[in-house]
Amino acid sequence: MAKELTSRSENYSQWYSDLVIKADLAENSAVRGCMVIKPYGYAIWEKMQAELDRMFKESGHVNAYFPLFIPKSFFSREAKHVEGFAKECAVVTHYRLKNSPDGKGVIVDPEAKLEEELIVRPTSETIIWSTYKNWIQSYRDLPILCNQWANVVRWEMRTRLFLRTAEFLWQEGHTAHATKEEAQEEALRILDIYVDFAENYLSIPVIKGDKTESEKFPGALNTYTFEAIMQDGKALQAGTSHFLGQNFAKAFDVTFVNEKNEQEYVWATSWGVTTRLIGALIMTHSDDNGLVLPPKIAPYQVVIVPIYKTEEQRAAIAQKVNEIIPRLKALNIRVKFDDTDTKKPGWKFAEYELKGVPVRLALGARDLENGTIEVARRDTLTKETVAIEGVENTVKQLLIDIQENIYKKAADFRTSVTREVNSYDEFKIEIEKGGFLLAHWDGTTETETKIKEETKATIRCIPLEGEKEEGKCMVTGKPSAQRVIFARAY
Amino acid sequence: MAKELTSRSENYSQWYSDLVIKADLAENSAVRGCMVIKPYGYAIWEKMQAELDRMFKESGHVNAYFPLFIPKSFFSREAKHVEGFAKECAVVTHYRLKNSPDGKGVIVDPEAKLEEELIVRPTSETIIWSTYKNWIQSYRDLPILCNQWANVVRWEMRTRLFLRTAEFLWQEGHTAHATKEEAQEEALRILDIYVDFAENYLSIPVIKGDKTESEKFPGALNTYTFEAIMQDGKALQAGTSHFLGQNFAKAFDVTFVNEKNEQEYVWATSWGVTTRLIGALIMTHSDDNGLVLPPKIAPYQVVIVPIYKTEEQRAAIAQKVNEIIPRLKALNIRVKFDDTDTKKPGWKFAEYELKGVPVRLALGARDLENGTIEVARRDTLTKETVAIEGVENTVKQLLIDIQENIYKKAADFRTSVTREVNSYDEFKIEIEKGGFLLAHWDGTTETETKIKEETKATIRCIPLEGEKEEGKCMVTGKPSAQRVIFARAY
Repeated sequence: MAKELTSRSENYSQWYSDLVIKADLAENSAVRGCMVIKPYGYAIWEKMQAELDRMFKESGHVNAYFPLFIPKSFFSREAKHVEGFAKECAVVTHYRLKNSPDGKGVIVDPEAKLEEELIVRPTSETIIWSTYKNWIQSYRDLPILCNQWANVVRWEMRTRLFLRTAEFLWQEGHTAHATKEEAQEEALRILDIYVDFAENYLSIPVIKGDKTESEKFPGALNTYTFEAIMQDGKALQAGTSHFLGQNFAKAFDVTFVNEKNEQEYVWATSWGVTTRLIGALIMTHSDDNGLVLPPKIAPYQVVIVPIYKTEEQRAAIAQKVNEIIPRLKALNIRVKFDDTDTKKPGWKFAEYELKGVPVRLALGARDLENGTIEVARRDTLTKETVAIEGVENTVKQLLIDIQENIYKKAADFRTSVTREVNSYDEFKIEIEKGGFLLAHWDGTTETETKIKEETKATIRCIPLEGEKEEGKCMVTGKPSAQRVIFARAY
Repeated sequence: MAKELTSRSENYSQWYSDLVIKADLAENSAVRGCMVIKPYGYAIWEKMQAELDRMFKESGHVNAYFPLFIPKSFFSREAKHVEGFAKECAVVTHYRLKNSPDGKGVIVDPEAKLEEELIVRPTSETIIWSTYKNWIQSYRDLPILCNQWANVVRWEMRTRLFLRTAEFLWQEGHTAHATKEEAQEEALRILDIYVDFAENYLSIPVIKGDKTESEKFPGALNTYTFEAIMQDGKALQAGTSHFLGQNFAKAFDVTFVNEKNEQEYVWATSWGVTTRLIGALIMTHSDDNGLVLPPKIAPYQVVIVPIYKTEEQRAAIAQKVNEIIPRLKALNIRVKFDDTDTKKPGWKFAEYELKGVPVRLALGARDLENGTIEVARRDTLTKETVAIEGVENTVKQLLIDIQENIYKKAADFRTSVTREVNSYDEFKIEIEKGGFLLAHWDGTTETETKIKEETKATIRCIPLEGEKEEGKCMVTGKPSAQRVIFARAY
């Protein structure tokens, strides 16, 4: 194979970087920490967007668009929010350049200094709640269920393509409600949508949970998360949904007249997933040959490669393929026919393995005679020869099987690396092996910090589901209401 | 009507501003010059995006994403480009805030100054061509046909919602080609896609043409434009497609080995349309009652309003409506049933007129008895009573008729305000009346500038189609190859 990858066992981190580059997903740009999302990577993002957007709209949400810039003073309004966000960010201080006096290039015009600096949004709660103030007077104006698809900037010092970049793409939902209960329900409804999306579209098994005090979103009362485990045993926070209480309503003085004719602060949620999901997708399913994509998200679900020696054979195969394609498309299967003449079939096989196309069909001259076609599946790297007649149905079923199989494989892996530990000594040994550790914790930030400092493990979440077994904190021996999930994380 | 608009005849500019606000399309934000696009306005943009994106993909283009920020030095590489763009722009100079020493809020951390300032993209040619340099070695890597959907920032001093804002949304295509001919063809192919979109989806008649030297995109060899005329007689540039020659390839040293094994600079195009199209849509079709939307772009094509006195009537009507809705949806008609009980039918009628919903169905108790339903069309404000049976087909045909009718109305208006003028004296009188003036011009920037200074009229374009009649410049008497189109413009 022309584009060989570092193997996962040799160097997992290098394998990931190689794969992102060689599968043409993304690359670093000339701007530190900012990535270029290449067409193939962006096509995956578009598929994710399409499914999520449909799910949001089906649950009553609408899209809108709020400004890229946020006045600096807005961040000071919510005390925890400013601590968490306003520090590492891109600051716009001027609005004009001018020709350099030395005649070389341009310089910032010192006369064009902004009265108040603008922050490139790291998240939009502040600008959105300053806007909602004008939209909300009465309970009749509620709920507001807005989402936006946007770019955001956080000045990260150590960046990795998709996983952590200075600029990334995301959706951010911001909802406003008349009651606490309704806002809490919304935050959990969205969490369920995310989990449905992760498990049934991305084939990534996840655990739903509540974040601890120290891991919460700055300004939230509850941060709900869904956590996945990568093949190297490290956890990844796939997305979050926040119950914000009345914090932002108070910060921006957003009140409404309730049904009892009383003034009350509005209740809020916010929630988001980002291009980081592409990183999660890669690290959950892919192998040493390249990407493995879940069929529901793959830009192409099927690639057809012709195998021929003569122009006559090529033409005869193309004719047959052009009969097959409409039958696949009629079943809503996304298909690509690669009949380029400048590459050999072996090169193409490797290329589409690298790109993670779920099903490959190969058709040769002998197949034509026999009425057969070779069907290869990317997840298991197995292949079989089947009748051309009805191959569209074979493929349709195979896509369903692959979607389920890679989920099962990931779930089995997760099971194999998830275990209970009952003492801190055991914890320190087990955490070196990676995976999710279920352990008792006393609920204090002090203990959590101590564990983090000593083992680099964080509490990924306090699980929302499953048995709630009481016990004693593995560090302090104090009572614990349930086991929580620890891991080292991305 | 609760939300009365200023009439167009009273104050066209105020009518526009009122309409954008009252129809819930957009509003000004807390950040100078930046707008909030509200859900109803954004839904129109989403419809535009969906159609354009499909057209781009059907013609072989793919989406990608490039960084928001551009290093300042990149702008100095292409001399004309820096003159045109790098001046009025948002400049990021710092990457961190810190707590203010006085304990009040946050300040820019002077220690976190960037070595090189970053410009928030006003357009992306420079960052994209610096990226393409790494993507292109051989003619086999060409063409590259990338588009991106993104936000851009131009520090405009005088802003108007949708028409001219500091931040706006757009798509920007950036293509790379092996030959001059292919790049020229691409620029014109895109122009044709834009014109198809404007005329057949937005129902806006447009004129295709070439921009003069002084109106070209900074860095382009040709800027192709499509120009529309608004109801107040002012022209609006609806979008542009640029043939960039080898200018950006030279600025960023992007060469390729051609089929003859020679090194050559790559040929380029770029092209874009923006949220300004929403402004064009409003000003082309809408009236003193509110928006008039072309059915193909309307978020809802049909609204159903029930008219009842008793709860029994309400239930019976709702039952019938719930039979009608699936029949409309089966024909891919977007329908909203407004059965809210807190507003009277008259209020709803006015509200959906304001929002420009193309067709309104009203169903009352007597209609139920008679098996009839009232069908009102927004464009003509006429209504008729038809049989409920088969109303979905009536509506489907009506949507086609409305789409065509509003195009025809706009085209007739354009014809009525387009005329030839043959002397500069006549021109000075006629330009005061608005509209497109077809006149002879000697092809020089001097004459163009003189006309602009004396009359505020600009050359909107040198038309690509229609008869090429030779003549003499109305100002200098020098020879002219064809009439060009003048207007005062947005």
